[in-house]
Amino acid sequence: MRTLISAFMMFVAVGWAQPPGDKPPTILIAYYSSQGHTRAMAEAVARGASAVPGAGVRIKLVADVAEKDLLDADAIIVGSPVYNANVAPQVQEFINRWPFRGAPMRDKIGGAFVTGGGISTGEELVQLSILHSMLVFGMIVVGGPEWTSAFGASAVVEEGPFKHSGGATVDSLFLSKGEALGKRVASLATRLKGDRR
Amino acid sequence: MRTLISAFMMFVAVGWAQPPGDKPPTILIAYYSSQGHTRAMAEAVARGASAVPGAGVRIKLVADVAEKDLLDADAIIVGSPVYNANVAPQVQEFINRWPFRGAPMRDKIGGAFVTGGGISTGEELVQLSILHSMLVFGMIVVGGPEWTSAFGASAVVEEGPFKHSGGATVDSLFLSKGEALGKRVASLATRLKGDRR
Amino acid sequence: MRTLISAFMMFVAVGWAQPPGDKPPTILIAYYSSQGHTRAMAEAVARGASAVPGAGVRIKLVADVAEKDLLDADAIIVGSPVYNANVAPQVQEFINRWPFRGAPMRDKIGGAFVTGGGISTGEELVQLSILHSMLVFGMIVVGGPEWTSAFGASAVVEEGPFKHSGGATVDSLFLSKGEALGKRVASLATRLKGDRR
Amino acid sequence: MRTLISAFMMFVAVGWAQPPGDKPPTILIAYYSSQGHTRAMAEAVARGASAVPGAGVRIKLVADVAEKDLLDADAIIVGSPVYNANVAPQVQEFINRWPFRGAPMRDKIGGAFVTGGGISTGEELVQLSILHSMLVFGMIVVGGPEWTSAFGASAVVEEGPFKHSGGATVDSLFLSKGEALGKRVASLATRLKGDRR
Repeated sequence: MRTLISAFMMFVAVGWAQPPGDKPPTILIAYYSSQGHTRAMAEAVARGASAVPGAGVRIKLVADVAEKDLLDADAIIVGSPVYNANVAPQVQEFINRWPFRGAPMRDKIGGAFVTGGGISTGEELVQLSILHSMLVFGMIVVGGPEWTSAFGASAVVEEGPFKHSGGATVDSLFLSKGEALGKRVASLATRLKGDRR
Repeated sequence: MRTLISAFMMFVAVGWAQPPGDKPPTILIAYYSSQGHTRAMAEAVARGASAVPGAGVRIKLVADVAEKDLLDADAIIVGSPVYNANVAPQVQEFINRWPFRGAPMRDKIGGAFVTGGGISTGEELVQLSILHSMLVFGMIVVGGPEWTSAFGASAVVEEGPFKHSGGATVDSLFLSKGEALGKRVASLATRLKGDRR
Repeated sequence: MRTLISAFMMFVAVGWAQPPGDKPPTILIAYYSSQGHTRAMAEAVARGASAVPGAGVRIKLVADVAEKDLLDADAIIVGSPVYNANVAPQVQEFINRWPFRGAPMRDKIGGAFVTGGGISTGEELVQLSILHSMLVFGMIVVGGPEWTSAFGASAVVEEGPFKHSGGATVDSLFLSKGEALGKRVASLATRLKGDRR
Repeated sequence: MRTLISAFMMFVAVGWAQPPGDKPPTILIAYYSSQGHTRAMAEAVARGASAVPGAGVRIKLVADVAEKDLLDADAIIVGSPVYNANVAPQVQEFINRWPFRGAPMRDKIGGAFVTGGGISTGEELVQLSILHSMLVFGMIVVGGPEWTSAFGASAVVEEGPFKHSGGATVDSLFLSKGEALGKRVASLATRLKGDRR
């Protein structure tokens, strides 16, 4: 009798933490980078996501993302430089080949990060453009955890105090926002995944 | 002994459907309406949300929403008429008095619905303006379940085939989008609520 | 003496209507169309622009627009279908190859028109995305003359009363908005051109 | 006879510079400021506009702007702090009382400037929200002269290197953008005004 009760208790305890058959969530970070700034942000987002126990993090250039990568992902965080107040063409092409029929992207979590030259020169528009496209696919969208990263994570790399002498250096202020975004999306994906029973 | 086992089984069965101490999710539909069109949409959203078993649905004018209503809600769906490509002042005032310090709105689910006079005269902008403000508060935002209601639910009430001879009639095409939005948000809130253990 | 005075008067009279050396304004309508709807709208915009006396109207597919066409134009009206709440890739590629250095596009007048499948599914966003990119180039942007075409001209071609059984039929409601946009932009270009002395 | 000719020549010369009956353009700068940052930006915009010979510049709090001020203005530059990714309520109320019937605001030039707490936390959205509302009224909208002020002029006042120890100090980087915006709008208004014959 005690054995039976113990089995029940174990079942309950395990089930509580993670339902039977559950797999850890997969976070796909897909980006395009021409000069390296967006790559630096992508790596910061990945660091943040990886800090969430159990999250499986994949980081890929948009050109390398296969349809299976998209379908396997519980959350997708897309990164783009700002081109004339819009996403990079490579990112647009990427989004345009997401599977649409039957809405297989629905209920996946979405987030965005961008790098732009100047302050208020399209960073908000491009983060939001990515989120708006995700809404067309039925995704659930989020920004970063704080009001300072409301629409995701953005970095300014060529104006005023953020202008660096060379290389693809991104100010730590922005890298922190990238980390926070990755962590938040991975946490949320873990919560939602746990509920898919 | 049987009693103990039965108690355990009941505990497990109940717990599985709903963890102990869990309460069903509360969906708050908060709107402003001057002519009745937005009220009609709000009622459609409420019908959709109420169709989800276990969802507690509250529908209130923005002026009547207390801070406790906001804090109690698991999801908030905000409705506004379009005023010069922006939300109604009453809706803006409502959002501006949401609690901010300590981020108590974070992780609540958000959705939006609007009514506008003409086609493409601000319906998208106002749905998105509401969602963008929600992102500032750290909310998780969604549109309707289909691409035709990507950003929430909108209704056109004064132009072309949608111009009605009188009263606050809203075309059934748009009321359906409202219902679908309510249903989707309530379903998602139920899923997320079940996971808050 | 009388001859001299007469010459002066004539000079003044002619100069008043049109300063010496002035050329009529050129309106470039540049679009991409996959199914023919955006082409139908482009032709409506061209009809409207051509109704303004003295306006030189050119209508071209974006792929056929040379840099000289852009530099020669006093106003540019860009048309795109809606793809996942963004411009068509062909339109984005077009905008990304506009001359930037030295700001040769500055002070040109800009307008936008779009065609989308459903109501409030990206028509506003895409009109505005085009206008926002134009602002990055320093252009002066306008919508149509009435509030019902505030952001340019949009057409819905696949939903509700606007769903047609076949072909690239665009409802006359939307074609009228296209004509009104063309007329407004050409009128404004004529006024501004007259002043470039 | 010489007198007559001289009179003609003078008429021509003066007329050339400014047609008879023409008045210099009026630039209205209307803003709301709670802490003084937006006031500082408004003053920078006014300095820029005043640098254009012949421009009549008026700077007023939105609450003090009468309908006659709006009707008299050839250009209107509106300034607002960012409140939850939207304009301040006072600015929205201001825009909502602009004359609409008969479109008396049509063809006036519009520009926008804003102040926000953080980087990419609504500065673009609020500049654009103002411009979008102006488009509903049929206005002609512009940003600043350079891509770094594409949508008008924005200032960040509470984050990273822009956080000041006290008072309503706005970084000179942003004040310069304000001046450039004022100058550009006043120049354009002068050109367009000269053409209203």
